[in-house]
Formats: sequence, structure tokens, C-alpha cells
Amino acid sequence: MTRSWWGWGNVEDAVRGEELDALLSRVRALTSGELTGHEPPDPASLGLPAPRVSPPDALAGLCSADPADRAGHAHGKAFRDVVRNLRGDLRHVPDLVARPRHERDLAALLDWCSGEGIAVIPYGGGSSVVGGVEPRFDDRPAVTVDLERLDRVLEVDPVSRAARIQAGVYGPHLEEQLRPDGLTLRHFPQSFEFSTLGGWLATRSGGHYATLYTHIDDMVESLRVLTPSGVSESRRLPGSGAGPSPDRLFLGSEGILGVITEAWMRLQRRPEWRARASVHFADHAAAVAATRAIAQSGLHPANCRLLDASEALINTGVAVGGGVLLLAFESADHPVQASLDRALELCRDHGGEVPERPGGRGAGDAWRSSFLRMPYQRDALARHAVIAETFETACTWDRFAELHAAVTEAARTAMREVAGEGVVTCRFTHVYPDGPAPYFGVYAPGRWDGLVAQWDEIKAAVSEAIAANGGTITHHHAVGRDHRPWYDRQRPGPFAAALAAAKNALDPSGVLNPGVLVDAPGPAR
Amino acid sequence: MTRSWWGWGNVEDAVRGEELDALLSRVRALTSGELTGHEPPDPASLGLPAPRVSPPDALAGLCSADPADRAGHAHGKAFRDVVRNLRGDLRHVPDLVARPRHERDLAALLDWCSGEGIAVIPYGGGSSVVGGVEPRFDDRPAVTVDLERLDRVLEVDPVSRAARIQAGVYGPHLEEQLRPDGLTLRHFPQSFEFSTLGGWLATRSGGHYATLYTHIDDMVESLRVLTPSGVSESRRLPGSGAGPSPDRLFLGSEGILGVITEAWMRLQRRPEWRARASVHFADHAAAVAATRAIAQSGLHPANCRLLDASEALINTGVAVGGGVLLLAFESADHPVQASLDRALELCRDHGGEVPERPGGRGAGDAWRSSFLRMPYQRDALARHAVIAETFETACTWDRFAELHAAVTEAARTAMREVAGEGVVTCRFTHVYPDGPAPYFGVYAPGRWDGLVAQWDEIKAAVSEAIAANGGTITHHHAVGRDHRPWYDRQRPGPFAAALAAAKNALDPSGVLNPGVLVDAPGPAR
Repeated sequence: MTRSWWGWGNVEDAVRGEELDALLSRVRALTSGELTGHEPPDPASLGLPAPRVSPPDALAGLCSADPADRAGHAHGKAFRDVVRNLRGDLRHVPDLVARPRHERDLAALLDWCSGEGIAVIPYGGGSSVVGGVEPRFDDRPAVTVDLERLDRVLEVDPVSRAARIQAGVYGPHLEEQLRPDGLTLRHFPQSFEFSTLGGWLATRSGGHYATLYTHIDDMVESLRVLTPSGVSESRRLPGSGAGPSPDRLFLGSEGILGVITEAWMRLQRRPEWRARASVHFADHAAAVAATRAIAQSGLHPANCRLLDASEALINTGVAVGGGVLLLAFESADHPVQASLDRALELCRDHGGEVPERPGGRGAGDAWRSSFLRMPYQRDALARHAVIAETFETACTWDRFAELHAAVTEAARTAMREVAGEGVVTCRFTHVYPDGPAPYFGVYAPGRWDGLVAQWDEIKAAVSEAIAANGGTITHHHAVGRDHRPWYDRQRPGPFAAALAAAKNALDPSGVLNPGVLVDAPGPAR
Repeated sequence: MTRSWWGWGNVEDAVRGEELDALLSRVRALTSGELTGHEPPDPASLGLPAPRVSPPDALAGLCSADPADRAGHAHGKAFRDVVRNLRGDLRHVPDLVARPRHERDLAALLDWCSGEGIAVIPYGGGSSVVGGVEPRFDDRPAVTVDLERLDRVLEVDPVSRAARIQAGVYGPHLEEQLRPDGLTLRHFPQSFEFSTLGGWLATRSGGHYATLYTHIDDMVESLRVLTPSGVSESRRLPGSGAGPSPDRLFLGSEGILGVITEAWMRLQRRPEWRARASVHFADHAAAVAATRAIAQSGLHPANCRLLDASEALINTGVAVGGGVLLLAFESADHPVQASLDRALELCRDHGGEVPERPGGRGAGDAWRSSFLRMPYQRDALARHAVIAETFETACTWDRFAELHAAVTEAARTAMREVAGEGVVTCRFTHVYPDGPAPYFGVYAPGRWDGLVAQWDEIKAAVSEAIAANGGTITHHHAVGRDHRPWYDRQRPGPFAAALAAAKNALDPSGVLNPGVLVDAPGPAR
């Protein structure tokens, strides 16, 4: 398999043939766009500028100046990244891509870059959708540090069910290494196949679990982080109240405080008991109320994904007015049917109907296959000048109805303005006792030469609506460079000052991922 | 009821009469001490030095220079605090005790103290057992800011099940204000009656739940903190991945970054279904294995407290070789008997026996009454020169057996050296899938004029053993001034640098709780 330099995943898995025809005909039914296909450029033909720096001899073997490598590491995998790649619009590319073999290499790279004032962009799977790995600055050279060689499970503690794992390991390879011990991390973000443990930790990734263990944060036992000021390694502890949590400062730090190299992660046995169902609702507000009741019940479903009517139709083929709730329970220890039964009772109390099909596997299975194809389909649509992107937030239950209405309205208005028309969908990816994490999709016909600007206008409009209605600018996509304006308004001012001071203490040369989370000081030289 | 100035809780609840006779006769059976009783001194007779500062007129009405007030705020409520109070050994007392009525008062107090270089000690219920509220420095005056007037629930959101609560409210008064809405925080540390929400937050208190929601941290939706550099207020969110969590920086900050004034807390409905049992074990290692199996089962008991043989005998009257496991499940939504049944099955797999008595209520009830009397009994023992104190930690399951053996041995050796003899007990207060939180008790005959030094030697010995065996210096008692040496070794160096930089950004005059968590810079003037 060949990783795509410009888009999601593997080249061989791209949408083509019958799947592409079907996708485009579905889109034709919804929008009036032209749907002309465009081919990605050859990175060698892009005329990338020569690297502005050359590594010292000792590091030369770790560094690549290959155009395809540099182009492939220039952007993340957001719609606006993919479009810019397709159009050959690579204004900022890393000067070099470095691949350390171990921490000593990484320390030497940090020393070199700190000394020379070269920006360092820590890079996991590159699946950022917020500009987190893009060297979006002109004032200094940049080296992207791809951690793919740090890919091993170093130690397993089967008694405490934990493992020491290198940060550069991709999802499937991580699970493969845990399998012989009968253990699993069970953290399955949509990017699972093409993202790494270190990326999940640095961005507070949201995973498989709809409740309880939603963010990777709670699965962390200890972290090892290489900073320009030395190694920060926390003690392996199941819990501690000794001062503010050191790990929580690095979780979500998006590479500005140091490079996460290893973590002890909490694991589980593979589930043996499962129960699932899908529930149909005629009314969305009732579906939301049912979902809230389940989120507040203490039943802790592993999946509790509410698809609105459009999401349900597009991704599961179910036509129902108020949406479909996908429910699943799992356990490695005990049967879970009683929990599902109680959850279904709560649904029925709110008008939910469980279709005859036993376990409602139809919608759930359809959703899962659809889920994994979404990024590939997004890329196919981008190639046909269709705006297709998602954004997400979280808010308290009391504010959801207003937030949903305002965000939907903002998205529709913006799409009308920039594209004449458009569709908005919404699902819940995770739910908490005090609120849901809504995830929106937008689809609109674009103009090939204006796609990024069109999307940016829509994104700004929906981000304003989220901020005005008490949502977070991101529940699990991180901040990066794209969310900075709204993040800056969301976080408390004194916290911003504390974070900037902490960064300055750990990264006095200011070389780590400049411009992310806090303002970049000028280059050191 | 009258709060004791020198010891735990209310004067009227002190151990006396028959309870005292029974306690002393139990102690006589275990140790050879003299058991002569000593009376607490009258604070007015202690000859406290006059306050070194006097407040500006605008703040004078908030400030008390009353000797009993100052003496009562000089120490926390650890054994060494109580003993020093009893002996009239008050080397450091606050110059003034201030009681702001609202945030404006508090801001004015912070301004005055920052300007004058006066140390500010934020004070909740004063139940610290780690020297967290003691002005243990000579280089500057100190004002203790008692937040007891900020005691209201300001707003309840019944839909999201959350409330905005002032930080100075005591546990019972908080629950009383939530009751009309049918909601509860259900955070019940042993100190519940005499500690405050703000204190719980600043010290990452451990509560009622043995699993899942052990630390107060996870019940926080947002925090409002007054810092010398302005107000830090986070957005109410059920979850967020926008950078490192602002709240997690303030949780556990023990008053060095700012004063927590309000929090939106996640609440629950009162439980309607309950199931509980106690399980007897002939072998402690088997009891630990059973407890681990339950902690890793995903059953999430509300109580899962393993008492070793001595704890069980002293506090529940049950004589059994390997200990007693107290189990309880609760839910506001659904029956929990099946969860208890499965947990008991896991216990039986490890040799546990459930006594005939239905629900095993005997041991559980005995434990609960004993639990609430413990601090009062500790004080009665202190008055009779008996060393009686606890300490706690957490470690991963793979290290527990060694840690337990090493800590027990260190405690016994130290007690033999300083007191000739002594008893060590152990229970689990909280358990996690990857490890337990063991809580130790020590009892030894002391010398009236050497009690503090004796205890300090024991404490140093057990702290070294904890550190050497991978435990945390505190699971839920915070760091304060007493745990600093071991905390400094436990936390990663770069994190310490980041925390000190964050403090300096928020508290540039360095007035907030000097000496806690990070070194105090010299006084500002």
C-alpha cells in the first residue's frame, strides 16, 4: 500500500469506479455543482524552494529533502489541506523531514534546531485537520520531525494492564503488538489507521467510547516528553493528588512544550460480551432527550451515537424524521444485555422505536462501513470541487437546542452566500452526563478556483456561532493554527499567560511548533 | 455547636466518657504507653505576637486579629498540628484572618497583600493534613483568607445537572442547598462536614466513590479563580480538547496560583437502588487479587474498600485473617443487584466468603460509624500521648505487594526506634483498573514532650519507602509543606520549571501560599 501524499490514507483505497459513480450521483441529487474531476499534481513538478538549512553531518542520515516527502508533510488532512494539495498550492513546506530512530536522535535534532533557531514541527500520522503540522510562517526555516520510527510497544504489565509504548506507533500496529497479551487500548478515532499514539496524546484525541473513556487523556498512566530543557517523565500511577497533574499539562499541548516520546497507557481485555441496537425517532428533540437520559443514567454505553435525519439517510440508508440512535454496550467481564434493555426502555419513554430486525444491526453495520470510507469520499468530492467538511464542538445540554439551531443557520446562510446552496448534518460522537459533543457535516457545490476561500467563510461563520452559544471550538480536533482566533477567546486570559510562561520555561528558544496555542516569539536568530 | 480551635470538628463531639474509656482500654491492650490525659490550652493565654500588619480602613471590617481566631487558623488538622496546638506550640500564626464577603473583597485583599508583600493563605475548612494552610515562614507577614462567607449555590441547571457554587461552602450546607432540586454532588471525603468545595478543588480531594469518580477533578465543569493577575474563568463544557485543560492547572494548585471562588460542578440524582455486601478473606494476597479483579471488571462499585485484618478488627469488630472487603453499588436509574452478584462471584473465585447475614450490613455499618469518629478518636489519643496518624499513596497493582511490605516494615522499624513498638494497618480507599490507593494507619505509644519529632521520624521513613517503591507521596491529601521533599523528587523537573513559571506569571509578587509546591521567592519588600 502507498500512502497518498495529498489526501487521506492509501492511494489504493481511493474512491473510484462504481463507488465514485454512486457517490457523484448521490451528490448530483443534492446539489447543482459541475462535478468535473481534477487530478492531483506530481510533487516533483511543484518547484518547491530548496531547503534553507542543511543538517550537521551527524544528523544528515535522519533528514530527507525529497520533494514528495516535504510536500506530503506540508499540510494535515483537512478539506482545505487536501484542496490546497490538489491545486499545488504549497506555500509553506518544511525544509526537511527528519525521522529520528530513538530519543538520542530526537535530542540531537532538538539541540540543533534550538541552537539555530529552526522551527521544529512534531509529526505523528499527519492527520491534523486544524493546521497543526503546517509550517505556516515565513520568518524561519522548519524541520518536521516524523516519529514513525518510534513504533514499538516496549513493555507490557499484564497485572496492572498497562504498556509502555513509543509515541510514533500507528493504531493498527499498536493493537497488533498488544494482541499476544490479550490486551487492547481500544482507542479508535476515525483516523485510527493513519494516526499515532503521540498524535492522540498531543491533541487529546477522542476515541471509540461514547461515554466514560472518550478522550485519550483518561487512559494515560504516565508520559515521557523530550523538551529542549530536558526530559519530563512522570511516575506510573493509577491516580495521584500531588499538585496539578503533570501529564495534563502535556496532554493537548500540540507539540509546543516538548515531543512526547513514550507513554504508559492503561489497557483492557478484549470485550467478550456485546449488545447493540439502533433506535428510530420521529422527532429530533425527543431523540436528543432520550440520548440525554441515557448519558445521565450511569449505564455507560460504548456507543451512543445520535444521527440526525440527514446523517442517517446518507450514511445508513434509513429514512426517519427525527434520527437514529446507535447504541452498543460491551464488556470483557459480564453480560451487558440488561444495560441495553434499560437504555432501550429510556428510548421508548421518549418515543423511540426499535425496528424488528434483531439487534438493529442494519443501521449500525451500515454506519461503520460508511464511517471508515468518509475521509476517502471527502477527497473524491474535493477532486470534484464539492465542499465537503466537518466540524465539531461540545456544549451543556441546556444550550444544545439553541447552539444547534444557530450553527445550522450560520452554516446554511454561509453556504448560500458562498455557494448558493448547501446541506448541514449533525450527529453526536460522544455524550457526557452534562452535555453532548455534536459533530456537523456540510456539503455544498464549490468553485474549483475558490474552494478554500469558500470553506474558510463557512468555517468562520460556524465558529462564531459555536463561540456565541457556549460551545468549545473543538471537542477532539485540537486547536492547531486554524482554531486560534476562537481558542484565544475561549480560554481564560490568566491561563493563556500561564501557558505561555510554561512554554518559555521549557522551550526558551521558541522553536517548538511556532504559532500553535500561544503566539510565537520572533526567531532566535 | 462550637468548632474546636485546636482539634477536629466540634467541641461537643469530642470523645469523652464511656467512648473514651473504651478507646483507652483498646489502646492499653495494644501498647504500653502511660495514657495520661492533657488539656488543650486557652489560646488567649498563649501570648501570640501582635499582628505585624494592619489592614487599610476599607478592609479592616473583614479582618480579625482575635487570638483564638489566629490560633485556630495557624495549623491544619494533622496529628502533628493537633499535638502542637495541644502543647501551645504555635510558632507561626497568621497576622490576621480575613473573611471576604464576595469577590470584590477578595480582589481588594489580594491587591493590598500583593502591593505590600504580605503572604496570602487561602483557607477553606482548614482540614489540611499536610501543612497546607500554615504560614510556615519568617520572612514576611501573613493574612489567612477564610472563604467561609462565600457559601452559596448561585445557580442550578437541572437539565445538564450542574450547579454554580461558591468555593467557601462546607459539605453539609452544599448538599442542603442542592436537595430541593433532587440533586447531589455526592462527594464525601472523610472531612466532608468540616471542609469546603474550594478546599476539595485546590487539593484534588478524594471522595465517596471507590471507582470512576474518585477525585473531585472529574466533577468539575468549569472554574472561576481570582489571581493577582486577573480572573481566570473557564467556559462551562462537558468535555473539550482545546489545548491543555485550564481547569487541570488550577485543580491541585493548593492556593499558589490563585483563589478558587466558584465552580460549576457536575451533579447527580440521589441514588434509589443500592446493593451492598462484605466479604471475608482468609488471605490478604487473595483479597487483593479479588479487589483487583473487581477494579478491572468494569462493574464500577461505589464502595470497594479492602480492610486488612487489623483495620477490620479495630473498626468493624470482624476477626478474619486476610481482611474484609466492603462492597456497595448504587444507581439513580436502575437496579444494581446483578453487579453486586458478579462482584461477589469474583470474590468467591479468590476464596472470599460472604457471611450469612443478608447484605453483610454488619461490617459496612460498623465501618461507617467508625469512619466518622476516627478524627475525634485520633484527637483523644493525641491528648493521651499516643501516636495515631494515617498516610496514603497509590501505586500500580504490579508493585503493590512490594510497596506494602516495604512501607509496613519501614513503619514498624521507625516505631520501634522512636517508641519501642507500634501497629500498622492498611486499607484501600479507592481502586483503579491499574492500581489501588492504599491508606495506612499507625499507632504507637508516644512521649508527651516528643510526639511531633517521633511522628516526623516515622513519616520520613514511610515516605522514603513509598517513594522507593513507585508510590505517589499523596493520592488525596495534597502536598502542602509536609510532603515537599518527596513531591520534589516525584514530579518531573521540567514540569516543576513550567509550574514555577506559571506561578510567576499569575502571582508576580509571589504572595500566594509561599513555600507550597514551588519554592517561595523572597518577599517583594
